[in-house]
Amino acid sequence: MRLYGYFRSSAAFRVRIALNLKGLAYEGASIHLRRGDQAQAGFLAVNPQGLVPALETDGQILIQSIAIIEYLDETHPEPPLLPRDAAGRARVRALAAIVACDIHPLNNLRVLRYLHRPLGQDQTAIETWYNHWIDAGFQALESKLAGDARTGAFCHGDAPGLADIALVPQVVNAERYELDLAPYPTINRIFENCIKLDAFADAHPNRQPDRDE
Amino acid sequence: MRLYGYFRSSAAFRVRIALNLKGLAYEGASIHLRRGDQAQAGFLAVNPQGLVPALETDGQILIQSIAIIEYLDETHPEPPLLPRDAAGRARVRALAAIVACDIHPLNNLRVLRYLHRPLGQDQTAIETWYNHWIDAGFQALESKLAGDARTGAFCHGDAPGLADIALVPQVVNAERYELDLAPYPTINRIFENCIKLDAFADAHPNRQPDRDE
Repeated sequence: MRLYGYFRSSAAFRVRIALNLKGLAYEGASIHLRRGDQAQAGFLAVNPQGLVPALETDGQILIQSIAIIEYLDETHPEPPLLPRDAAGRARVRALAAIVACDIHPLNNLRVLRYLHRPLGQDQTAIETWYNHWIDAGFQALESKLAGDARTGAFCHGDAPGLADIALVPQVVNAERYELDLAPYPTINRIFENCIKLDAFADAHPNRQPDRDE
Repeated sequence: MRLYGYFRSSAAFRVRIALNLKGLAYEGASIHLRRGDQAQAGFLAVNPQGLVPALETDGQILIQSIAIIEYLDETHPEPPLLPRDAAGRARVRALAAIVACDIHPLNNLRVLRYLHRPLGQDQTAIETWYNHWIDAGFQALESKLAGDARTGAFCHGDAPGLADIALVPQVVNAERYELDLAPYPTINRIFENCIKLDAFADAHPNRQPDRDE
């Protein structure tokens, strides 16, 4: 397997965690987003969307982190990343989507760049935007997690899964932007439980060979 | 089943299509987004995220449109909304995610409002933003659809599924903002095939009892 990613991309971070949890070895291909590798013809031939991650496996190229992780879970079922019951699966997919649909896309590099130019926003306005959407999503997540008996050591029960895989990179981003995490004690507790695990810790941006900051 | 939605919400539109394709009857509960119903305590008790759709079914409340549709597909398998093979499922989920993660969240009402205030953007800048993200996503989708033999009358083969369910509401939004669809002939062809079907046509915003524009 070959994972096209970037140390700082949270969507690539998700796939790294999933591969680690499944115990799957992979070769990393670094697409340097700040230098614009994703807009070069070479990478557009891999993923015409020009975004990471993309996973080359079984003779095909898969894109979109959550779709990739669902594929890995279907083709390598152990340990499972989704609960066995339909209601639990719906819950975990929804928790993951709060991050993957309603926080992360708004704070993606291409969006922050658009805010800067053409919209002419300064660094303070961009940071306020960034934290605004994390806060909106984390408030919802905290409420969903704290108010549900199915929450355990992890987002759903006592084993890590898709929701934790989405959550951890978002918390790492929030820390980087110095967002105060005190209002989200359940998120914080689950994050601490996750990051103790090698599968999560080894996937951290700071441990990637292409880190440059 | 009770669907909390809004005629204009594309995420609610997706769930309406899925319910129609499955032949499932539901009661609609209109949450008027422009008037702010979603921020009232009554609805926040249903969905603390303050977004539609939410589906009350089997004694629980499900949120996040794609998670809801996956649940409906698991609990009411016919007709299937995802292919049988893992690779096909990954493809369809990725096509849906291009819309659900990388176009729609950027053009959501709450985001357009934030651009207006506090960011002080005028209507022209907001419309340019809106069409910019649709164009970026549609270019990727068009390329993925046109370049893959698995594309048929619909996004994946000759029966409608999850990718079509995500695509159609996004095309309806693009039409509303008068985006020229000529650069996306495959998207256009698939849209025309979908909208001929009652399941899609009946879910259109203009046919909802709470439409007010």
